[in-house]
Amino acid sequence: MTENRSSSTGPQPAESPASAAVVGCGVIGAAWAARFRLHGVSVKAYDPSPEAERIVDEVAANAVAAWEDLGLPARLAPIEFCDSIEAAVADVELVQESVPEVLTLKQSTLATIDNATSADALIGSSTSGLLCTEMAADLAHPERLVVAHPFNPVYLLPLVEVVGGKATAAATIERAMSVYRGLGMKPLHIKVEIDAHIADRLLEAVWRESLWLVNDGVATTEEIDDAIRYGFGLRWAQMGLFETYRIAGGEGGFGHFIRQFGPALSWPWTKLMDVPDLTDELVDRLESQSDEQSGAYSVRELERIRDRNLAAMMRALEENQWGAGQTVAEMRDRLGG
Amino acid sequence: MTENRSSSTGPQPAESPASAAVVGCGVIGAAWAARFRLHGVSVKAYDPSPEAERIVDEVAANAVAAWEDLGLPARLAPIEFCDSIEAAVADVELVQESVPEVLTLKQSTLATIDNATSADALIGSSTSGLLCTEMAADLAHPERLVVAHPFNPVYLLPLVEVVGGKATAAATIERAMSVYRGLGMKPLHIKVEIDAHIADRLLEAVWRESLWLVNDGVATTEEIDDAIRYGFGLRWAQMGLFETYRIAGGEGGFGHFIRQFGPALSWPWTKLMDVPDLTDELVDRLESQSDEQSGAYSVRELERIRDRNLAAMMRALEENQWGAGQTVAEMRDRLGG
Repeated sequence: MTENRSSSTGPQPAESPASAAVVGCGVIGAAWAARFRLHGVSVKAYDPSPEAERIVDEVAANAVAAWEDLGLPARLAPIEFCDSIEAAVADVELVQESVPEVLTLKQSTLATIDNATSADALIGSSTSGLLCTEMAADLAHPERLVVAHPFNPVYLLPLVEVVGGKATAAATIERAMSVYRGLGMKPLHIKVEIDAHIADRLLEAVWRESLWLVNDGVATTEEIDDAIRYGFGLRWAQMGLFETYRIAGGEGGFGHFIRQFGPALSWPWTKLMDVPDLTDELVDRLESQSDEQSGAYSVRELERIRDRNLAAMMRALEENQWGAGQTVAEMRDRLGG
Repeated sequence: MTENRSSSTGPQPAESPASAAVVGCGVIGAAWAARFRLHGVSVKAYDPSPEAERIVDEVAANAVAAWEDLGLPARLAPIEFCDSIEAAVADVELVQESVPEVLTLKQSTLATIDNATSADALIGSSTSGLLCTEMAADLAHPERLVVAHPFNPVYLLPLVEVVGGKATAAATIERAMSVYRGLGMKPLHIKVEIDAHIADRLLEAVWRESLWLVNDGVATTEEIDDAIRYGFGLRWAQMGLFETYRIAGGEGGFGHFIRQFGPALSWPWTKLMDVPDLTDELVDRLESQSDEQSGAYSVRELERIRDRNLAAMMRALEENQWGAGQTVAEMRDRLGG
């Protein structure tokens, strides 16, 4: 009983780019660079911050350790830092933009990229919340821009949300799907543009509800985290919400589930509308609870713990030929190990 | 870097009950029975449905298979079906009530249990949404009632939410924590009674947001599930929301994260308030999308796939001495294997 759904049968195109540029080398951009390099793709990088090279090196070291945990060959293709966006993007097949989440900054950065690269280069924006159509407003070649929103740690988690704007060509979407698959990822094409795409809508809902629980003194940050990771978080690493509830519906299937539980689920909706103000007091409470919960580990240690756990679980799923484990199996086919 | 937090250091009391009764043998009650029996606790059971014995047997078979996947000794202590609640609960240390989620039914069932069992038996209710105080309204001995809300599959997932009511004795909470720990679980004591406790509040938030996405044609059930299980679902199997975001805050810690991202997160709140009506058309759409997504597998197959994946990931976390893996390690210490 391995995973082989009608929706995803047949080989799907997967071709990693010959060369790539990362514009913006914070945690996300640096992790993209690591994923590219681990797939043998040489990278040109631009970031005005004096911290950028240090971050890129630290994230690359984490990524190498994670790939060793996965049992994949952890060889990094070269990276070259450039003095300008133009120099970084001039001659590459894929440009991944990961600058801060400010629309005007995204627009101007993407316009600079658009002018400096060949018209057939693919441009992916890592934006977690902005619309492709709005970011493309000033581009001469908006047809080759997509949102390609990854999840931290980008060198391990397979998901990338691919969203086109009004001007994005259908061929660009196809190409982006193939390119990100070629980088060992699970690209999810989202057909409708909405703020925050899909995954961050769900995260935002949990975030909002969690703040409410802390604000009202119902639970601490540690209790909420434990309620997640000892329960439904385990389920969601391998099946999502709907497939899990389908099982709850039993032989009657999902229709049975929703007809039985739908009405019961409706009443809390009105109660859950309440959301707390992010007052200084709430911020302080969150901060001190988080220190109490996680302060025994440095952030560097937490990153390594997270990555070791993710790699171990992904290998377990690979063994079972299911879900995120299948992306690891595909990387292993391609890269050896 | 194994898990050893200040909040949970030191050995915590863990004593499985000598005997237990399950009242209500649907999927939840049957899975409780399986967990008890796999811990060597003999069980008396009551359920008026002619289907109850079949469900108990099928769930026990799944639980045995899952425990074999965990590498734990999969021996079932005996179970005895009784003709009345009174006969089932008369002489046991723990009664686990799992009847349907209707307040008046819970109240009358718990009153029957309360009258028929010795006053020092512990009574746990599996309610996912009701308040302990309201359920205890008619009890002669409300001091020994707790909510003990588990998560499916109960024989695998460690989380159990323990909530007392106004009349619940402090000693009962302590005892319940010890008893459920003794059954290999991670009891989470929730100090404030609210509808749906903690985990189901978070699930409800995601459920509501997901229905909205399907209703508006933004995504299908399969796309939403993939957005979960290839991304943040993997993260949440080992660290919750807050610890994950603490990492995102970098060396500045959680305060840095929330001061940086808090304001940006505030604006979608008002947009996310909208929730869809559960119309026939939406129900039909959900059902047909779920069939398209998961129809290649029977529910029986999905259960086994889920359990194999959960067991494999929990063993991986056990290897890393982290989170849910530690509950497996504790069971292995106690039970062998």
